[in-house]
Amino acid sequence: MIVSALATAVGVNLGLTVLLASTYSLLRRRPPFVSVYAPRRPYAPLGSWLAAAWRRSEDDIHAAAGLDGVVFVRIFVFSIRVFAVVAVVGVGVLMPINFLGDQLRLIDFTDLPSKSVDVLSISNVQDGSNKLWLHFSAVYIITGVACYLLYYEYKYISGKRLEYFMTSKPLPQYFTVLVRAIPITDGGSVSDAVDKFFKEYHPSTYLSHTVVHQTGRLRRLLNETEIIWRKLKNIKYVPHVSHIENRPKKFLGLFGRNNPVRKYQKRLEDLEENVRMEQSDATRRREIPAAFVSFKSRYASANAIYVRQSDNPTEWQTEHAPDPHDVYWPSFSTSFMEQWISKFVVFVASVLLIIVFLLVVAFIQGLTYMNQLEAWLPFLRNILEIAIVSQLVTGYLPSVILHFLSSYVPSIMKLFSTMQGFVSVSGIERSACNKMLRFTIWTVFFANVLTGSALDQLDIFVDPKEIPQRLAVVVPAQASFFIAYVVTSWTSITSELTQTSALLYHLWGSCAKCCKREDSEAPSMHYHSEIPRILLFGLLGLTYSIVAPLILPFVLTYFCLGYFIFRNQLCNVYAPQYDTGGRFWPIVHNTTIFSLVLMHLISIGVFGVKEFPLGSSLLVPLPVLTLLFNAYCGNRFYPIFEAYSTESLVNKDIQEQSKPEMAEFFSSLETAYSDPALKPIQRSSNSDERTAPLLSSV
Amino acid sequence: MIVSALATAVGVNLGLTVLLASTYSLLRRRPPFVSVYAPRRPYAPLGSWLAAAWRRSEDDIHAAAGLDGVVFVRIFVFSIRVFAVVAVVGVGVLMPINFLGDQLRLIDFTDLPSKSVDVLSISNVQDGSNKLWLHFSAVYIITGVACYLLYYEYKYISGKRLEYFMTSKPLPQYFTVLVRAIPITDGGSVSDAVDKFFKEYHPSTYLSHTVVHQTGRLRRLLNETEIIWRKLKNIKYVPHVSHIENRPKKFLGLFGRNNPVRKYQKRLEDLEENVRMEQSDATRRREIPAAFVSFKSRYASANAIYVRQSDNPTEWQTEHAPDPHDVYWPSFSTSFMEQWISKFVVFVASVLLIIVFLLVVAFIQGLTYMNQLEAWLPFLRNILEIAIVSQLVTGYLPSVILHFLSSYVPSIMKLFSTMQGFVSVSGIERSACNKMLRFTIWTVFFANVLTGSALDQLDIFVDPKEIPQRLAVVVPAQASFFIAYVVTSWTSITSELTQTSALLYHLWGSCAKCCKREDSEAPSMHYHSEIPRILLFGLLGLTYSIVAPLILPFVLTYFCLGYFIFRNQLCNVYAPQYDTGGRFWPIVHNTTIFSLVLMHLISIGVFGVKEFPLGSSLLVPLPVLTLLFNAYCGNRFYPIFEAYSTESLVNKDIQEQSKPEMAEFFSSLETAYSDPALKPIQRSSNSDERTAPLLSSV
Repeated sequence: MIVSALATAVGVNLGLTVLLASTYSLLRRRPPFVSVYAPRRPYAPLGSWLAAAWRRSEDDIHAAAGLDGVVFVRIFVFSIRVFAVVAVVGVGVLMPINFLGDQLRLIDFTDLPSKSVDVLSISNVQDGSNKLWLHFSAVYIITGVACYLLYYEYKYISGKRLEYFMTSKPLPQYFTVLVRAIPITDGGSVSDAVDKFFKEYHPSTYLSHTVVHQTGRLRRLLNETEIIWRKLKNIKYVPHVSHIENRPKKFLGLFGRNNPVRKYQKRLEDLEENVRMEQSDATRRREIPAAFVSFKSRYASANAIYVRQSDNPTEWQTEHAPDPHDVYWPSFSTSFMEQWISKFVVFVASVLLIIVFLLVVAFIQGLTYMNQLEAWLPFLRNILEIAIVSQLVTGYLPSVILHFLSSYVPSIMKLFSTMQGFVSVSGIERSACNKMLRFTIWTVFFANVLTGSALDQLDIFVDPKEIPQRLAVVVPAQASFFIAYVVTSWTSITSELTQTSALLYHLWGSCAKCCKREDSEAPSMHYHSEIPRILLFGLLGLTYSIVAPLILPFVLTYFCLGYFIFRNQLCNVYAPQYDTGGRFWPIVHNTTIFSLVLMHLISIGVFGVKEFPLGSSLLVPLPVLTLLFNAYCGNRFYPIFEAYSTESLVNKDIQEQSKPEMAEFFSSLETAYSDPALKPIQRSSNSDERTAPLLSSV
Repeated sequence: MIVSALATAVGVNLGLTVLLASTYSLLRRRPPFVSVYAPRRPYAPLGSWLAAAWRRSEDDIHAAAGLDGVVFVRIFVFSIRVFAVVAVVGVGVLMPINFLGDQLRLIDFTDLPSKSVDVLSISNVQDGSNKLWLHFSAVYIITGVACYLLYYEYKYISGKRLEYFMTSKPLPQYFTVLVRAIPITDGGSVSDAVDKFFKEYHPSTYLSHTVVHQTGRLRRLLNETEIIWRKLKNIKYVPHVSHIENRPKKFLGLFGRNNPVRKYQKRLEDLEENVRMEQSDATRRREIPAAFVSFKSRYASANAIYVRQSDNPTEWQTEHAPDPHDVYWPSFSTSFMEQWISKFVVFVASVLLIIVFLLVVAFIQGLTYMNQLEAWLPFLRNILEIAIVSQLVTGYLPSVILHFLSSYVPSIMKLFSTMQGFVSVSGIERSACNKMLRFTIWTVFFANVLTGSALDQLDIFVDPKEIPQRLAVVVPAQASFFIAYVVTSWTSITSELTQTSALLYHLWGSCAKCCKREDSEAPSMHYHSEIPRILLFGLLGLTYSIVAPLILPFVLTYFCLGYFIFRNQLCNVYAPQYDTGGRFWPIVHNTTIFSLVLMHLISIGVFGVKEFPLGSSLLVPLPVLTLLFNAYCGNRFYPIFEAYSTESLVNKDIQEQSKPEMAEFFSSLETAYSDPALKPIQRSSNSDERTAPLLSSV
């Protein structure tokens, strides 16, 4: 890529970014769009949203988005800190040295725009030059700073997590254990078995239990009810009467539209009758051998989790109970066989997904080679020969396609994790986050690096000793693609602000008048799609920091944009669906360590290729030290994210022992884990009343 | 190897085996050798030891050698069962079919002895023959039988383990937790910190604690005392006076020997005075931040182990306390830095050991190729050309050298494990057992397979898909070597019966009269050296069962010999040093699974080489199913070997709650974990009395 192509990409994206941000600034306080831009705060405060995002304290974010929101913002804070230092080193020291090198023999200051951006990369430094000691030092400095900040963040966030636990009000999940694989004796019920077992082995601490029931059929009925009810509401909505308070049947009847309404109403009443029957008749529901068992103290429930319960390890398996709102009930209904089949399907589908994506990436990478594209699509030759089009196609289009396609993967990954049988939404999303991360790193980073370079390099993983050399050849070759990719990301992160899809949906709804956004409920934050994306840019920034420092200012800009945008979004748009208490941080930590080690390997290889073997050898201890550092952090902090300690649990128990509200809490605990499908339908059977609250809210 | 060479090897070994067994039968009841052959039962029962070994019940072995002894015998029982079936299939069905094949075109019944034993292997079956379906079925049958028996044994032994726990008398290790990394505040002692912490967080269950002290210096003094004391005793022993009861100084003085005695006695008194001062002066001993903390119930101590204690995961780390007799005290004295250095040294030493051993193996394998040996040592040519010498050298010598060298490795591995800082002897030996197993399988099996075959096959691990094909070529080529190896093992297992080294030591002691075996204490069983050896024969038997079934009767004979010999030895010779409650079994289980999967890979490769691709493909699911079976067994049984369940712990606690002897036990618990180096020396300072008990026992 030449400098002018890069400039085009930067120009286009900067324009789009400013445009999107301005659109947002204009639209966000207009009443029709408040439901899109500030569903959590119907009356958005006056003044600039940027200034508001800046002024907001961490406590505000904690209050608005939970500890997960804080952790999410800390990813940006950490990245900005790291890349501020890295950018100073890279742009301030390495880039001028690269530029003044003469390896590429391209020094010709008059015609900069048509030069390749490679002139700013390490490739331009004379082989074996003493200047490479600066690059060498930079690797050590960057690693040192990154590790120091990683340690600091891990400590800070684990401190927050403990503080959060100590100041939390009593929450059902701390007192409750999910017990699975409950064995039942002939004729006995699951409930009796649970009661007998825990009264026998935890006589002084056992409080109550809730057996999980097979409610798949009931859930299907409720879904159907919901669909019919929406249809009914939409039909009623057509005559443009916003406040139907009384007797809609007759009113609508004047327009001759009572037939479908009556039909749906009849159907709805039948369904609701069915639901009520299903709910009231306990004999119709099969008990599932799983139960939520509550204890009188947090410490007692921790004991029940960590000491194996039964002599037969496949029975009475205990685990942490999720937050009652976080429970993903359908997971309980799948049988053991179904779970096995699902796992197999997930495995096959994952493989297929990677293959499909690799093919797409290979095609995209073909785009960066114009002549290849011209050969494929000869009729486009004339268009492609226009300079600006050519620059757009090589410098911009591949990244856009990749961004676009990548945006569909998170929901697929979430589906995969759902099929694996996690019992909580947060568990599903954390698993999906890990899947996404592996997918992103392998398909976006490695696939582009490998397919973009000559395909005969694909035997890279045969001899481990050669990996650094191979990486040193293939990674720098893709620098310009990834610079463009980072630049494109500005637009994608700003479009988060304008919520383009939600906006379009809202506008279409307003026009058609028949499918008005049904509920102005705040959407939930998709950590599993956002975190891997941010971490990818950290990976790109670190791996290219030595090889092509030009990428650094763009990466830093991305993180700064993200910092402001997400502070705004977390407070105004997204409502937390669950709170894992910051359990996403270890993922961030481990990925950063991975990025650092990858940077070391690439640097070792690059120094080898640049005939600087001493530098190569002296770098070898660095990945080892980094991994030792990671092992230490793992020992020091990771257990805090897995479970609370006796110290915390006992202290918290003692602190609340004498509080009068505990009696009330314990009585509420008995019903905390009842399946929502078993709760009576909140709307009454009268369709008018049923629709009323919703209509009045629009 | 030709049949006559094999016959020579079998003949020699059978002769040696019978000779050794007869020697044992003759010697074992002679009074001078009772201390060698039955230190645990000074009066050996009359009658055949073979019959006695046969008649002994499992309860007898449990009583004599603990559950570990039972598990050890079960390895033989399991192996005999498996190989009885495998031998019927292999020798009864496969071997005749191999023999009747004509691939090697060697069918000539008249001259059997000079034929290669390959005529009995699968190599002799016509390529692509339908008879290979029999071999194919044999793989499935053997795997099925082995897995069934594995499941049965795992279930049986885990049942035994639970039974053993439920019927055990109260043991300190179940009530005690080893706490490490105890943080101390300025000026406070470790003891105070422990007391404060456990009184705060385990107020109702905490009983007492014992802080570990730095006793390295004291231990060195005690060792010195012991050495001097032995020297003194030996000097006194010279005048052939067995019962020196009074005034030895004067008595010995008559012989003009009082000078060295006085010198040593003075030295001993000084040392003992030193020891007493060191023991009494608590201020001289540095506290180590580790303590044994005892609780009032088994369940409470399990809670303290499995729920993390402190908010800082690197502090107050808890783990199972070993049996007080099993504690390896020197491990506590090593500092954190020393442990790190030790680990590094162990790593380097392990690598060196493997390299040295591989060189030795390569040399040994050179022996099996006569012409190579003749080229190296031309002056031996005349001798080597004698038929019997040649047969001995190719068929027997390599195995003997390998057996001899292998016998030195277990103590090296134990040293390595000791340096890694395990706090119990059983922990050291289990770790050494795993190390030995890896070492044995890699150096004995793979190294022989690889170096024995052409060296250009060494790139075997490049392409995983080619592993079966490569194995199919190199493994059968070494069949005759391993048959000889198994045959040689008869002698080595029978020499266990005669305790050759102990016998020689005893005889030398009787002759020299000055270094009589000092204590007739029973030696302890070295599970870490015996178990890997037995498992290696299981591996050889299974991997060669299809390829060269001739090995099977020899393997079966080995296990039968082992069964009788070790049942005898466990009851008469070895005293258990510790009891892990059968925790060696999972090692046996996993190794057998490894052997099965290796057999599958070899079979897949062999069927491919024999132009039987359908058989190859249909075998592919088998290793997958075997690994799934292993995963199931791991879930079902392994946790039982790691920890006891709430069910067992609470039941056992309740069962003993009201027993009057518990009060006494709890008071004994307070001193159960005191360092033996801090206990007063049992012998009085008077040297006469000190030597008296020992002399009176000889």
